[in-house]
Amino acid sequence: MKPDSVAMSTLSSVCKQDVVCIFGTGDFGRSLGLRLLQAGYEVVYGSRDPKNSALLPKGAKVMTHEEAAQTARVIFVAVHREHYDFLTSLSPALEGKVLVDISNNLSRGLYPQSNAEYLSTLVPGAVVVKAFNTISAWALQSGGLDANRQVLICGNNPDAKQAVVDIAHSLGLTALDRGSLKAASELEDIPLQLFPMWRLPFRIAVGLLAVLFIYVLIRDVIYTWVMEKKDISFRIMVSLANKVFPMVALVMLALCYLPGVMAAFLQLYNGTKYRRFPDWLDRWMLCRKQLGLLALAFAFLHVLYTFAIPIRYYVFHRRFTFTSTMIKENKTYEFDNVMAWRSDSYLAMGMLGFALFVLLGITSLPSVSNSLNWREFSCIQSKLGHLTLLLCTAHTFLYGWDKFLKPSAYKWWMPPGYMLSLVVPCVVLILKLFLITPCMDRTITRIRQGWERSAKAGTPHKKGKSNQPLIL
Amino acid sequence: MKPDSVAMSTLSSVCKQDVVCIFGTGDFGRSLGLRLLQAGYEVVYGSRDPKNSALLPKGAKVMTHEEAAQTARVIFVAVHREHYDFLTSLSPALEGKVLVDISNNLSRGLYPQSNAEYLSTLVPGAVVVKAFNTISAWALQSGGLDANRQVLICGNNPDAKQAVVDIAHSLGLTALDRGSLKAASELEDIPLQLFPMWRLPFRIAVGLLAVLFIYVLIRDVIYTWVMEKKDISFRIMVSLANKVFPMVALVMLALCYLPGVMAAFLQLYNGTKYRRFPDWLDRWMLCRKQLGLLALAFAFLHVLYTFAIPIRYYVFHRRFTFTSTMIKENKTYEFDNVMAWRSDSYLAMGMLGFALFVLLGITSLPSVSNSLNWREFSCIQSKLGHLTLLLCTAHTFLYGWDKFLKPSAYKWWMPPGYMLSLVVPCVVLILKLFLITPCMDRTITRIRQGWERSAKAGTPHKKGKSNQPLIL
Amino acid sequence: MKPDSVAMSTLSSVCKQDVVCIFGTGDFGRSLGLRLLQAGYEVVYGSRDPKNSALLPKGAKVMTHEEAAQTARVIFVAVHREHYDFLTSLSPALEGKVLVDISNNLSRGLYPQSNAEYLSTLVPGAVVVKAFNTISAWALQSGGLDANRQVLICGNNPDAKQAVVDIAHSLGLTALDRGSLKAASELEDIPLQLFPMWRLPFRIAVGLLAVLFIYVLIRDVIYTWVMEKKDISFRIMVSLANKVFPMVALVMLALCYLPGVMAAFLQLYNGTKYRRFPDWLDRWMLCRKQLGLLALAFAFLHVLYTFAIPIRYYVFHRRFTFTSTMIKENKTYEFDNVMAWRSDSYLAMGMLGFALFVLLGITSLPSVSNSLNWREFSCIQSKLGHLTLLLCTAHTFLYGWDKFLKPSAYKWWMPPGYMLSLVVPCVVLILKLFLITPCMDRTITRIRQGWERSAKAGTPHKKGKSNQPLIL
Repeated sequence: MKPDSVAMSTLSSVCKQDVVCIFGTGDFGRSLGLRLLQAGYEVVYGSRDPKNSALLPKGAKVMTHEEAAQTARVIFVAVHREHYDFLTSLSPALEGKVLVDISNNLSRGLYPQSNAEYLSTLVPGAVVVKAFNTISAWALQSGGLDANRQVLICGNNPDAKQAVVDIAHSLGLTALDRGSLKAASELEDIPLQLFPMWRLPFRIAVGLLAVLFIYVLIRDVIYTWVMEKKDISFRIMVSLANKVFPMVALVMLALCYLPGVMAAFLQLYNGTKYRRFPDWLDRWMLCRKQLGLLALAFAFLHVLYTFAIPIRYYVFHRRFTFTSTMIKENKTYEFDNVMAWRSDSYLAMGMLGFALFVLLGITSLPSVSNSLNWREFSCIQSKLGHLTLLLCTAHTFLYGWDKFLKPSAYKWWMPPGYMLSLVVPCVVLILKLFLITPCMDRTITRIRQGWERSAKAGTPHKKGKSNQPLIL
Repeated sequence: MKPDSVAMSTLSSVCKQDVVCIFGTGDFGRSLGLRLLQAGYEVVYGSRDPKNSALLPKGAKVMTHEEAAQTARVIFVAVHREHYDFLTSLSPALEGKVLVDISNNLSRGLYPQSNAEYLSTLVPGAVVVKAFNTISAWALQSGGLDANRQVLICGNNPDAKQAVVDIAHSLGLTALDRGSLKAASELEDIPLQLFPMWRLPFRIAVGLLAVLFIYVLIRDVIYTWVMEKKDISFRIMVSLANKVFPMVALVMLALCYLPGVMAAFLQLYNGTKYRRFPDWLDRWMLCRKQLGLLALAFAFLHVLYTFAIPIRYYVFHRRFTFTSTMIKENKTYEFDNVMAWRSDSYLAMGMLGFALFVLLGITSLPSVSNSLNWREFSCIQSKLGHLTLLLCTAHTFLYGWDKFLKPSAYKWWMPPGYMLSLVVPCVVLILKLFLITPCMDRTITRIRQGWERSAKAGTPHKKGKSNQPLIL
Repeated sequence: MKPDSVAMSTLSSVCKQDVVCIFGTGDFGRSLGLRLLQAGYEVVYGSRDPKNSALLPKGAKVMTHEEAAQTARVIFVAVHREHYDFLTSLSPALEGKVLVDISNNLSRGLYPQSNAEYLSTLVPGAVVVKAFNTISAWALQSGGLDANRQVLICGNNPDAKQAVVDIAHSLGLTALDRGSLKAASELEDIPLQLFPMWRLPFRIAVGLLAVLFIYVLIRDVIYTWVMEKKDISFRIMVSLANKVFPMVALVMLALCYLPGVMAAFLQLYNGTKYRRFPDWLDRWMLCRKQLGLLALAFAFLHVLYTFAIPIRYYVFHRRFTFTSTMIKENKTYEFDNVMAWRSDSYLAMGMLGFALFVLLGITSLPSVSNSLNWREFSCIQSKLGHLTLLLCTAHTFLYGWDKFLKPSAYKWWMPPGYMLSLVVPCVVLILKLFLITPCMDRTITRIRQGWERSAKAGTPHKKGKSNQPLIL
């Protein structure tokens, strides 16, 4: 690196009176200009029609593209890709300039080449940097407190990238270098993403919801209609929903802890943590947070639906009918101590489980999890998480009580829904129980600290030769 | 920029053993000194009484102001504005120094000139930078994880500002340049603000609450008292509140989506997005988040009040009276299937609406909205938001059911409150329905992508000449 | 500082093609390498067995330790402390290099010397910087949006530290200088901490819970069993829990505001704010947030348990028994207007108090409190906080109503639990009432603005001589 380029970049980082040029006077161009002016930069807009500058921020200059390009080293190209053509004619003026491509596309896969790479082929003499496309005009206007403040940057010239990083820092944003210009297409896809991490968990939730709803519908409404010729379809709105929601919540909570348990068994089996998990397990592990939060949403609905029970017309009517029948027939309603214990325990388990579940949800908020260290985070998410699962499973068992053995509970040989929903949680809890036995726990802890079981059978506890000293 | 100034600023950014001087030994001065010491700076306090340094952080030196000023290039003036006078006598020692004004006032508009500008007239030989006044002593002490970490900076000398930015970065804070020293008065107002964005929504909420409460009070309590000579004033505490809260929540939720719909119609009418909205609409748009969160607060109260219904004495008494009367009079209480459907649908709509509303609230937490891209954020806030409004409106319609047409519901020609609360939501939903018809939706999408309808009538779809290529 | 060292550090900040060397191919080493590669660095791993590089990120080179050390200025030592010995043999190759110690220990106090200081005695020719040990491999992989992004750094050489700061910034992380290498042991303790701020509040909560539970158990279950030979132990699950939870919540909420009130009285007594509080008060003040959040958790459980009352078997049975007895004995159940007022007011106070409490909880989320200025934060936490306490205390008084004076409420001379729980809140509210009287309020405000009462009696309002002008 030549000494003058050092001085250059140092200058650009210190001397804020630097001029920045913006091609394009759209929303983003204007927001960016305003923010640059606030941060002490001189801003020059390049425009086809320099006289028409009504909406531009006060203090900015407007010139033709040629003139504007000559004033600054860094030029933001705030123009749609379809209109890049005019830049070819400016090639001489853009020689050696840093062109910042901030464009996004309307949908993915429109063009074979990323906008930034296309720009760089159009103006080969300029240095193209892809940046700022993940920042919204709104984030720039509002000072960024409410929105994503991380500018992702890529480009082939480190000097040019540094100039853009400096500008980002001056605007109160953080910058993250994502490598060479090849990463541009990846960066251009980011603003088009729609919850990529949530897709799989969401599909699982919808699938479970649909299957369990149909199951419960057949078992309750259709069975009653066929066998007793009674229409209880009004129960769909609340009663059936309140059967399906907790089932989905419980299964998804269990699915959220199943991959961790499976990974531990796989590590035990492999005798090392330095073997990659199968791809499906990796993907599953990565969406555990989303699985858990969706489970929490269903648990929340279950709580709302449960607390609404006593204000339902149907429940009021049933209770009235029960009371009046008992009184008219002069029956006594003996207090059943076991029933009282069971009903209260069932409620208590559920409510404690839900409270812990809410705590898990709160600690997965980005700002809360950021303030925890790794040990605290894993203590909450793993220990409290399994406790939550245990409480919720106990809640479901107490709900079922002795109905597991009663043949009358099996209509058309179909067991009640909650029995089905207990399968996955029980598997997770039993596997976890194995893992926390002292002997298993010791082995898994050592494996996770880098210990490896030798490949040779018969010497499972000898330290392998290839065992590089390692950090967790 | 001269080469020596480059070296100077580079030095200050690299050489952390830099000395920093602090005038004033108050809370802020001490917290700042402690933090600077932790970050590896040498700290020298300037004090009138250098021997009295009991409370100062360990490791700091204390000198007279003159001596202290000579040790460092950057001097923090942690002194109240009223006591700035003593600095004039130090003018020779402060020549060429960077004076960082960190002061705040007790209330707005006390002085015609900002503290920093006043300081700069008192010591014309020094370079004044306004900074750190928005950071609390608490934020400095606690390492800033829990508090605002953005240092706002303004000043006329970029070199001096950079020196302060470097110090802020060393303390783990972010810095945002806000321009020249003229911005100082604005910066000094920031710590005195009290929820400026919440004021309008809060007033709307209080106004709605008061008007609707009086309306319901007249219709229920006073009407009953006048017409039936019966005192049902006990209903104020829960029953009336639980009528007013959902009404306020629904109206405010609708008010939160009304400006967006109006803006869309305005853009359709103007045929362009490059015309400014009227000021009142801009202001309204900016406080939508606050309107929505206040609406959520009232919806939350409504849910709490509703779930408490079955444990109220009044409700228990009424149910008992109903039951005993029916039994004594030997009446039968026929199960009404329509009533069951209606009651359950009404509850289900409300609970689903509330759950979605909570989701909207969670995504408006800064740390959550920061982790969403623009497309995800608008998908949740716009699509789910309108769905929430639809569910809550349906909830209210199902609550009313057939009472809309019954004359008995109109006491003193006053319709029940919930009918009033349905007006704004229905307007919003109907307007939105227009906007999502394919033809309207296409036009509005094109306008938002920068397309403009030519000013000439008759050629609405011709692209205007002045249409600069633009980025959304 | 010599000019070449300036050039050096400037180079390292600009020239991203810098080579970075990593010793150790464990999880952290691999995650770090991957991230460095993404950010445009060249990465060279030093390994005992350079041919075995199956799991290393694509694009990284693997060499022997000696070769690797020669390629880069900055070397990350991603190796367990037990294996540091091999570095002594590399001393010549490490001469003048920056060794970044990123290690953590399995538990505290294992070694008398911090890992970084030990490393620096092993390789005296190298410059050791402690950094990155508080960042998890997960945070590096996930881009850091979900995890702590603050790199804590300490070391004796500012130039070396700056090189590490630059690398941290390139990875999109923030850096905080924590001083000299002596701070290393402190930094190494951070990842081993388990909720240090929560320990005291958690112990208070558990202690209160245990004591109050036993108290209520004796008063309710054991008393009934001894005196009436009736087993009501089923009430433990819900009824007793729902007595204990609100008591704990109320006492802890009051404990959260008690230290503030005590501090104000202490300042009034001292006549100055420049005298340190006793240590126990300081510690108490620092854990107010945690006390409040635990109180909120118990209040949340209380709300859940209360809303579940009407779906309990016991409650249904009791209500049925009441109804059938009244009907059979042909009694009338007169509507009691006072009772209706009391029951509804009691519920309304509780629900409003809980809603405010939730608001307090939300504003203590890091991302929300970060977006508030000091005035807004203290307005919510102090004014709304005391209002919450007032509402919750009123809720409890209305619950008790006239039972305070009835001798029948005192079983075995033990007052009901809620009476005990009212002691602390009442003390706080009465003391607060004193403090907000105009005369007290004026004095305390002046003291907090830096005013001091002279030490000499009789001249309480004269400004002391030693009164240095100060900033709040």
